[in-house]
Amino acid sequence: MRRALQLASLGRGGTSPNPLVGAVVLDAAGQLVGEGFHKRAGSPHAEVVALRQAGERARGGTVVVTLEPCCHHGRTPPCCDAVIAAGLKRVVVAMADPDPRVCGEGVARLRRAGLEVIEGVARAEATQLNRAFVHRVHTGRPLGILKWAMSLDGRTALPNGESQWISSQNAREWVHHLRATCDAVIVGGGTVRADDPLLTSRGRRHPEPLRVVLSRGLNLPKAARLWDQDGAATLVAHGPEAPLDRRLWLDAIGVERLEMGVCEPASLLEALAQRGCNQVLWECGPELAAAALRQLCVQELAAVVAPKLLGGLPARTPVGELGLSRIESDPSWTEDTVRRLGVDLVWTLSRASPSGTPRDRPRP
Amino acid sequence: MRRALQLASLGRGGTSPNPLVGAVVLDAAGQLVGEGFHKRAGSPHAEVVALRQAGERARGGTVVVTLEPCCHHGRTPPCCDAVIAAGLKRVVVAMADPDPRVCGEGVARLRRAGLEVIEGVARAEATQLNRAFVHRVHTGRPLGILKWAMSLDGRTALPNGESQWISSQNAREWVHHLRATCDAVIVGGGTVRADDPLLTSRGRRHPEPLRVVLSRGLNLPKAARLWDQDGAATLVAHGPEAPLDRRLWLDAIGVERLEMGVCEPASLLEALAQRGCNQVLWECGPELAAAALRQLCVQELAAVVAPKLLGGLPARTPVGELGLSRIESDPSWTEDTVRRLGVDLVWTLSRASPSGTPRDRPRP
Repeated sequence: MRRALQLASLGRGGTSPNPLVGAVVLDAAGQLVGEGFHKRAGSPHAEVVALRQAGERARGGTVVVTLEPCCHHGRTPPCCDAVIAAGLKRVVVAMADPDPRVCGEGVARLRRAGLEVIEGVARAEATQLNRAFVHRVHTGRPLGILKWAMSLDGRTALPNGESQWISSQNAREWVHHLRATCDAVIVGGGTVRADDPLLTSRGRRHPEPLRVVLSRGLNLPKAARLWDQDGAATLVAHGPEAPLDRRLWLDAIGVERLEMGVCEPASLLEALAQRGCNQVLWECGPELAAAALRQLCVQELAAVVAPKLLGGLPARTPVGELGLSRIESDPSWTEDTVRRLGVDLVWTLSRASPSGTPRDRPRP
Repeated sequence: MRRALQLASLGRGGTSPNPLVGAVVLDAAGQLVGEGFHKRAGSPHAEVVALRQAGERARGGTVVVTLEPCCHHGRTPPCCDAVIAAGLKRVVVAMADPDPRVCGEGVARLRRAGLEVIEGVARAEATQLNRAFVHRVHTGRPLGILKWAMSLDGRTALPNGESQWISSQNAREWVHHLRATCDAVIVGGGTVRADDPLLTSRGRRHPEPLRVVLSRGLNLPKAARLWDQDGAATLVAHGPEAPLDRRLWLDAIGVERLEMGVCEPASLLEALAQRGCNQVLWECGPELAAAALRQLCVQELAAVVAPKLLGGLPARTPVGELGLSRIESDPSWTEDTVRRLGVDLVWTLSRASPSGTPRDRPRP
């Protein structure tokens, strides 16, 4: 199963809306005869890749797979059928597929076909690996990561607005890797105006994550690096109040628009889930970050902290008004990791589920 | 020398204005026959304690001492004389005493008396151990440590002012230990009004650090825990503009006052150096912290970062206006350590000397 999880992680950044899945096939004598992972939606599933490699040697053997084999016709035929057809004796599964079309039915069908099924091997690791997929299936929204870079005194910019080069080269490269694990990167109009960001993984993901601008009034600069879509696509999401002339201008320069009934983080994430996003990165300013947090659109935090003091009472800080009146009322961020990247620290944290996630929310 | 440095550190928090010093005595055969450390100003120096323990066995032997033996009459007679009188053959010294009354003259006198002197063994460790003493001797000011506790988004309080319980119990105990290494703890009037702090080491240092309030106008609450001096002394420093009625009130409740020509961090530190402080802790609000930084009264930072988001654009942050116009113009904080204390992180940093310290400043 450890090997199957390693294989699964090789698909990272490419499989959405599908989960990461890895599989190994052992012959009747326990020898490894096939392995595979899911590369991207529409390509063969992990079990099928591993079984093809094993061929006749799979007969009487075992398949070890990180996620319950599917039992429905999607873009590819059901994996359960392939597993049964291969003449396997046993199936070892890490976790059930949360997809309501599968969710236990895959395992049940295998058992009805007479195969031995062992469930729950390394379930915690498998659930962690696919936490974005699980979150999206349960909530109808992609998992959100809020990332910011700040000085040791909690500033994201000097009082005069200068914000470049707070973090080191090593930390910036880590951010490129982080973007490569995400299906979309989201900013607000203010960040486009202030920083003119590129928001790509610098080639670490193919295709690059979708670059999303959430802008109520479409008050956006005429020239911006985001409008050059040679290497990465850009989507501008806005509300019904966006002026017609600005919509027409975006259409004219070839930037895709998404008009939402209400211009807010939750609506955007539901739209992005429907476009197949499992995981998104918020790289926005304090007001949008606070709105995303208030609407439970953030499940993980990634704070890059640089050993510098910037100072300044009116200077910018990472998160705007959250409406808290007691410090204890802030939900806990747990399961954290601290990394050194050059001179900087990167502290990543995730909400303790289930209380911190909107899983109990009625499905839309 | 490693043992001598361990011994020296046992005096931490008690020796000011003197340095931390440890010594071991080996007999002619190299056997350990005495050890000692300097406990507090006025008590015997480390070499004398170790030589007393060794007695006649020191003759023909070696003393290993973390700091050059003194050659002047202070509160105790010169240690050089004791070393020479003990009939030792060799002296091993980690670092020269920066005190201009000693500074090489101790070693020279030992050599003139025919002893072999080996200098510079573990000099870096010894200098680090006594960095506060060295800093005070070189600059005429105690070494300053600026400490704050903040949330992951750089807040020291909620917008409504609530600031208690940002950090965990473990982190608060670490702060008590930090206070125990300092001769004084400094706040401004705003912190007294907002937090009514106790500012003690909770018994980890005897006597407790001097609690200092720097307050231009003496706009201080009538009732405050700092005015109860049963367990720890309080000093209020002010400028010439402080109203007479408030001075008289402080005198009446038995709180010591210090009137300075100008009410600012640098003047306060020079006064505290003259009172024997080697190391002080700034536990103040953002404006005073920024003033202390601007006047080079801070050589080390200790940021306690809690895994919480507080948010709020008008909320309080650790450091006020520093007058920086470029991010690169902030001096580097290096030589850092990250500790986990419960759920919190504590990041301590010090300025890269000599550029970041005011050592090149003319002596007052």
